Amino acid sequence: MPAKGKRWLLVKHFDGFPKESDMRLEEFDLPELKDGEILLEAEYLSVDPYMRPYSARSPLNTVMIGQQLAKVIETRNADFPVGTWTLPFTGWTTHSVSTGKDLMKMPPLPEGIPRSYTIGSLGMTGLSAYFGLLDITDPKPGETVLVSGAAGAVGNVVGQIAKIKECRVIGSAGSEEKLEYLKELGFDEVFNYKTTPDLDAKLKELAPDGIDVYFDNVGGEFATAALQNMKLFGRISCCGAISNYNLKEPEKLSSIYGKMVSSQLKMQGFLITKYRARFDEAVGVLVQWVQEGKIKVREHRTDGFDNMFKAFAELFTGANTGKAIVKV
Amino acid sequence: MPAKGKRWLLVKHFDGFPKESDMRLEEFDLPELKDGEILLEAEYLSVDPYMRPYSARSPLNTVMIGQQLAKVIETRNADFPVGTWTLPFTGWTTHSVSTGKDLMKMPPLPEGIPRSYTIGSLGMTGLSAYFGLLDITDPKPGETVLVSGAAGAVGNVVGQIAKIKECRVIGSAGSEEKLEYLKELGFDEVFNYKTTPDLDAKLKELAPDGIDVYFDNVGGEFATAALQNMKLFGRISCCGAISNYNLKEPEKLSSIYGKMVSSQLKMQGFLITKYRARFDEAVGVLVQWVQEGKIKVREHRTDGFDNMFKAFAELFTGANTGKAIVKV
Repeated sequence: MPAKGKRWLLVKHFDGFPKESDMRLEEFDLPELKDGEILLEAEYLSVDPYMRPYSARSPLNTVMIGQQLAKVIETRNADFPVGTWTLPFTGWTTHSVSTGKDLMKMPPLPEGIPRSYTIGSLGMTGLSAYFGLLDITDPKPGETVLVSGAAGAVGNVVGQIAKIKECRVIGSAGSEEKLEYLKELGFDEVFNYKTTPDLDAKLKELAPDGIDVYFDNVGGEFATAALQNMKLFGRISCCGAISNYNLKEPEKLSSIYGKMVSSQLKMQGFLITKYRARFDEAVGVLVQWVQEGKIKVREHRTDGFDNMFKAFAELFTGANTGKAIVKV
Repeated sequence: MPAKGKRWLLVKHFDGFPKESDMRLEEFDLPELKDGEILLEAEYLSVDPYMRPYSARSPLNTVMIGQQLAKVIETRNADFPVGTWTLPFTGWTTHSVSTGKDLMKMPPLPEGIPRSYTIGSLGMTGLSAYFGLLDITDPKPGETVLVSGAAGAVGNVVGQIAKIKECRVIGSAGSEEKLEYLKELGFDEVFNYKTTPDLDAKLKELAPDGIDVYFDNVGGEFATAALQNMKLFGRISCCGAISNYNLKEPEKLSSIYGKMVSSQLKMQGFLITKYRARFDEAVGVLVQWVQEGKIKVREHRTDGFDNMFKAFAELFTGANTGKAIVKV
């Protein structure tokens, strides 16, 4: 058994773009297990945009929030034998002690599907795509679905599920390489929001009859332009607002209230925790789609626990395509 | 039978605040009826804020849009005998010819309930309150419901229905007289948005645990402040955006997308036409509530068809409390 673990503490709440000096990497002594406890060792850790806004609620000098894929390496709990794979929300740490309460086990995976997918397309981000699209917007065959942040961890799965549901899918992303990736995934239309001078005109060009479903990962001016192009009875699923996370001054946007009324739109935000009771059902479906090749998984992997901050910061510079994970 | 009718034409699309010179009052000859037609004579006409934005779609030199309560005064249609009361959407005209197609008859009313209520609390505005509140937000006993434009035709009914549903109801309006009226109706808390320097602080004071349901008649900064004070799983019903209707420049507002996600809010806009199939059911309930004294009806009546424009303009200066109607 190792005597020490490593962890990243949040020592200063982020102000604007996250800085490495806002965090501290340190070693810590692993405690002796008490009866009922288990010791977990991380194999992969997830980095996600939500960590930026939600860390604002964390007390300082605590471990940075997040999920990981971890193995039981020592146990005093019969429900969690050594070698059990789990999905704890223990934050940025190589090791952690758990009583097993509320601890999710890794779902059973068929041959050939990598474990790391369970913190991505077969985990929280895949589930966010699944419920955020299907439960909130209920897309119908032939409808036009717009996804922003489409090359990101959630967005790429949203687009692929929308294709499974026989929708016409438009994706936006921030580089030509990402657009290529989206085309490979089967998106019908893609565009680079960074090089689009007039978002409204672009959306009118790509969706001349309007947008039925908008899956929002970005918020801001993009979401506002999308809303103005929604069709009667359009639905908007609000999953994230990454364009806003690092702003020091709140942005000012055009009003959407008149459009909400005149086009009878429905807009709903969600956190994936809401659907906890239905995770098993959904993971089962996602696993099947991955096996059938209907959902292709792409990971943006960073090696080394010491590089956690770098992997996190890249989420906001547009460096990653697919799900960002860190291998310890 | 009269030989001539009067009507108001829209001769210039409104730009900013509506001007009487944007319209023209004229006499016109009543046509001879063809087989199957009926001649309607208006008794009361409705003036409503929606007419401002929706008239932008009307061709110029056509009759201004709107609903009225009208009696059949001549008939060549057996389904509509002389004396039948109807609720046509024939616009600002004293007389109109109809084939009876899609023409709603006035619902049967118990003794003592004035006919004019059927273009107000027992008509479109009451139905907007009924479906916009109950169908979209599903308020539960004990929940906190905020209504803006609460002394208006829709808002006052929303507040009264929310009280029937045993909610705690907060209403905002623009004068002390209106606040008195809301208190008489049983609103738990009322405030004057015009004399409130900090809307956010006021909402935090009146709803320290947050708002469960917001019924939006105004849009703009008010709606944005309300959204920022919504509780987890809050619901917002978008019925109108009167603060926006007369602006020449689109207003700029703080982003609400991050809040939609973090508080898992649902916001939905609607037009009352969507619920047409359920009008009879809802009018039945509203009539009962009015009979039981659970919904009190207040009308802001203007006399004289020639004063239609004046009555309409008053909607935007805050002059009316309750439902604005014009008696021919």
